[in-house]
Amino acid sequence: MIYKKAKLSIKSFCRLWVFLFFISLEKLLAHINDPKDLKNLSMDKLPQLAQELREFIINIVAAKEGHLGASLGVVELTIALHYVFNTPDDKLIWDVGHQAYGHKILTGRKEIFETNRQLGGISGFPKRSESKHDAFGTGHSSTAISAILGMAMASKLQGEDSKQNIAVVGDASIASGMAFEGLNHLGVTDVNALIILNDNAIGIDPSVGALKKYLTNVKAGIAKDENIFECLNLNYSGPIDGHDVSKLVQELERLKTVSGPKLLHIITTKGKGLKKAEENQVVYHAPGKFDAATGEQLKKSEASQPPKYQDVFGHTLVELAKQNEKIVGITPAMPTGSSLKYMMDEIPNRAFDVGIAEQHAVTLAAGMATQGLIPFCNIYSTFLQRAYDQVIHDVALQNLPVIFCLDRAGLVGQDGATHHGVFDLAYLRCIPNLTLFSPMNEMELRNIMYTCQKKLTSPIAIRYPRGRGVNLNWKNEFETIEIGTGRCLKEGSKIAVLTIGHIGNQVSKVIEAAEQPELIGHYDMRFVKPLDKKMLRTIFKQYDHIITVEDASATGGFGSTVLEFANEENFTKPVKIFGVPDKFVEHGTIQETHAIAGIDFDAIRSYIKSTLTTCD
Amino acid sequence: MIYKKAKLSIKSFCRLWVFLFFISLEKLLAHINDPKDLKNLSMDKLPQLAQELREFIINIVAAKEGHLGASLGVVELTIALHYVFNTPDDKLIWDVGHQAYGHKILTGRKEIFETNRQLGGISGFPKRSESKHDAFGTGHSSTAISAILGMAMASKLQGEDSKQNIAVVGDASIASGMAFEGLNHLGVTDVNALIILNDNAIGIDPSVGALKKYLTNVKAGIAKDENIFECLNLNYSGPIDGHDVSKLVQELERLKTVSGPKLLHIITTKGKGLKKAEENQVVYHAPGKFDAATGEQLKKSEASQPPKYQDVFGHTLVELAKQNEKIVGITPAMPTGSSLKYMMDEIPNRAFDVGIAEQHAVTLAAGMATQGLIPFCNIYSTFLQRAYDQVIHDVALQNLPVIFCLDRAGLVGQDGATHHGVFDLAYLRCIPNLTLFSPMNEMELRNIMYTCQKKLTSPIAIRYPRGRGVNLNWKNEFETIEIGTGRCLKEGSKIAVLTIGHIGNQVSKVIEAAEQPELIGHYDMRFVKPLDKKMLRTIFKQYDHIITVEDASATGGFGSTVLEFANEENFTKPVKIFGVPDKFVEHGTIQETHAIAGIDFDAIRSYIKSTLTTCD
Repeated sequence: MIYKKAKLSIKSFCRLWVFLFFISLEKLLAHINDPKDLKNLSMDKLPQLAQELREFIINIVAAKEGHLGASLGVVELTIALHYVFNTPDDKLIWDVGHQAYGHKILTGRKEIFETNRQLGGISGFPKRSESKHDAFGTGHSSTAISAILGMAMASKLQGEDSKQNIAVVGDASIASGMAFEGLNHLGVTDVNALIILNDNAIGIDPSVGALKKYLTNVKAGIAKDENIFECLNLNYSGPIDGHDVSKLVQELERLKTVSGPKLLHIITTKGKGLKKAEENQVVYHAPGKFDAATGEQLKKSEASQPPKYQDVFGHTLVELAKQNEKIVGITPAMPTGSSLKYMMDEIPNRAFDVGIAEQHAVTLAAGMATQGLIPFCNIYSTFLQRAYDQVIHDVALQNLPVIFCLDRAGLVGQDGATHHGVFDLAYLRCIPNLTLFSPMNEMELRNIMYTCQKKLTSPIAIRYPRGRGVNLNWKNEFETIEIGTGRCLKEGSKIAVLTIGHIGNQVSKVIEAAEQPELIGHYDMRFVKPLDKKMLRTIFKQYDHIITVEDASATGGFGSTVLEFANEENFTKPVKIFGVPDKFVEHGTIQETHAIAGIDFDAIRSYIKSTLTTCD
Repeated sequence: MIYKKAKLSIKSFCRLWVFLFFISLEKLLAHINDPKDLKNLSMDKLPQLAQELREFIINIVAAKEGHLGASLGVVELTIALHYVFNTPDDKLIWDVGHQAYGHKILTGRKEIFETNRQLGGISGFPKRSESKHDAFGTGHSSTAISAILGMAMASKLQGEDSKQNIAVVGDASIASGMAFEGLNHLGVTDVNALIILNDNAIGIDPSVGALKKYLTNVKAGIAKDENIFECLNLNYSGPIDGHDVSKLVQELERLKTVSGPKLLHIITTKGKGLKKAEENQVVYHAPGKFDAATGEQLKKSEASQPPKYQDVFGHTLVELAKQNEKIVGITPAMPTGSSLKYMMDEIPNRAFDVGIAEQHAVTLAAGMATQGLIPFCNIYSTFLQRAYDQVIHDVALQNLPVIFCLDRAGLVGQDGATHHGVFDLAYLRCIPNLTLFSPMNEMELRNIMYTCQKKLTSPIAIRYPRGRGVNLNWKNEFETIEIGTGRCLKEGSKIAVLTIGHIGNQVSKVIEAAEQPELIGHYDMRFVKPLDKKMLRTIFKQYDHIITVEDASATGGFGSTVLEFANEENFTKPVKIFGVPDKFVEHGTIQETHAIAGIDFDAIRSYIKSTLTTCD
């Protein structure tokens, strides 16, 4: 009997071995079109799947661009989560969402993954309308704890207590105020919610702050006995190795049986599995095109291209700060993206990365301004939405001369709907005391920065887009800009085009290409607030048609302020407003999204043409 | 020798006793016109001063109204701070600022303290323009840590390291995300900043959340050895009795010599020293007029007055929630102010106070909405500024049917510039997918709440003012409101007045009082978005003059949206916009602030009168 049993076992073993051998020749990933397929794999296959998933991500991002490091860092976690839990019944939220590529690939979007971030393709972020497995759309950081708590409370109320609710949050993101608010509430509930703290000590740039320091101590075993998360009444476990997929599966299985709110601390390496990406985590957050085998970036030729507005800001700030010791620079977690890093490198005691903390950044700047410092507070337009109250209540109400530099204003391209900085003109224009400026080119940006640090007595917001300016020789001698004055770029007679910011360059081209350019005037208004009313009066008297163009929401924006002016002064000339219409614009190239919004070259040209025809 | 010494001592003692006796007959407070005067007192006099200061506050607030409990709770702390530190050289910030009455009285505003919160009088909050001792204006919570850190960093940069920087923050306020962001930064600096955590376990309503629970444990000695603030790298001391003035002085003196960031935890009782206020801390936060001796509130006759909008909201929500089990209610720390308390009392498992956490409140609601719940998220208009990004990014972008009830929209009266809810129309109008409604009366509020819970598929914001409606019989049968439709209240021929919200009632009175009311049409537009374009077309064709009236910023608000409509459809009739002008409006009664803003009865009447005269 024993002999027979053993023989059978050996036979079975051989069969299994042969089966496994052939399977191993074939890619595991090829068979995974739904998280359910994943569950058919034995646990010992998961490392191989991780390897394949990593290669898949690297190959496509190398060719198509996108966010790389974050998704590579959570490959094992992604597999473990879908191995243990059952989305969409169980709810899974990826905070920020840069790290969700693996999740997308395992949840039915493998075949279309190469359309990532392209017009009409899938989004670079989790998105409810894209998949039932994307429980909550993300993009801005630190929302996942609140959202998962809402879902978990709903489950409980609706008697669906068996549902699991999981949020994956990075260590940079969990240090943001909103995440703390979520944890503070979560800790006094009895819902089934699991927060996975993905601790890699980096966001886009390296994490900062006391919590980061504390987490470093926890990992080193230095922290004392009561954990900060336990202080907040959460069931804490970890830290565990986030690249050990079987340990992850084991721990997640265990936590599935633990009721109540809990936090699992895992340690991962951003960019894991691609040497270059591990070594240069900031660069490989979103490296552009690269060689999939070596990781080497494919350098675009930068020669004879105008500079990025970001670099104009960064270098100009250093230049000014060297001359004016009152200047300080502040960024909430975007030293690289904003180019504040140049000042952080050169004048580190006066340039501060405060982490993902826009609210704090703004009021910190306000506090500094009360003491005579001149803070340049650089925040992406879309993220200033996080600090709207602080701009009103702490800065504008007290009329403190803080200089807000709003980066990535307007349509931002591939990052899509979550990141377009199109509402700023509308939400800032109503704030008393606040000046609103947008430079049309590098020199204008430099000059307004120069002007502000020299003589500003009230707050200002300077908005400029993602991407490049228009001048190769942009390091002009500084000139003072008179606050509230526009520039006449070209006189005309029939149509006046009033533009605000960089998009004015496109209008210049439209006019150059027009059949009767002499009929078209072009005015770079520069200031949305205060308006150059003197110039506007002249324009409204001189021309038959007024056109306004802005890379911002047409509802309540620059065009709207021109209408308010015209109405107040009883001008009744027709005004055509080119701006982003009242809908969320998806991802695509900046040019494509401009076309969708109807603010591209063709749209403006065609309108001008038909208007001139009607004039004749 | 010994005998002689003793004799002298007895003699000195008698002299001192006589001196003290006479001093004690006279009020100590009478001699304190500047914090410097306070320093001339011996330490043993401080309890007497505390007693006097408390009486002074009670006597004036009893007669003039204002915030009571918070200032009574920090009388000893206020005295100790000014005894030890030297404002304005040392910087002192009172977070929120409800508790700063004692500070105002000791820093030169004793004589004008009775003008508190009145038009032209001192503000109910710290205010930079009011006194050099008010280092930073407050009103909204949780800003003080960021602001004091900004000041402390500025001191350090400017070589003024000897300056002390102190922020007093309550336990409800420190649990808000922004405060955490400040602490997280503070903990990795080496500035001289002292955060005083004034722990009384209550904000306006009792504190909530895991941190509150933790602090309770700390006070009970249950918490384990590493304090949560120590986790954040702060030098923690306490908890100590915040009503023991000599212990406070001693501890503050010690901390003055400790460099770096530090946190002192003190325990106080809100309303301390007035029995009624200690026993009913929520009511005595701002009790209205009361008997200074007994604390007994002087009840206003409520008979035959219309209800507060807040109560209409609160009672209607309970009524609806009883019929619709999907309904949940959320408030960030304003259960009493918003009247969500009614639902919290009657249906506690579906009504949630999440603490001072507007960001979390909004995204929690979004999470709930994804699971089919119907969240009524009630936030004061001015505080929704704190969650602007969440409204855009988590709610509107995902088109989740969250029902925002914006309380205290418009000019709010005595709370003044920090609290006016005037920007909401401008900052919300540009958000795609979002419906914007404002009820003119109780029935309209009830009906829109009924409509929303019945059929809403996208988010909506419903704004209504602080204060009373207009109808004694307001519990109407529910009716459905068709989204995007206005109401014609009265036909006319020459002038059409388009109103939005409660201020429409004032316009009705203006029309009633007009000489030729038959010439004036009145339209309650209700929806700022979507606009009732059909109705507007009729109006623009039918009338010669259009007037819009809103209790909100005229810049980018309702009037502006009417201009956008008219421009799009080529209507050129003159539009007169009545709204809050582009400046911060100070405190006063609501009526007074309406007059300052030029949106009161007289302003509208006079405009209509002169327009009709011109028509003739």
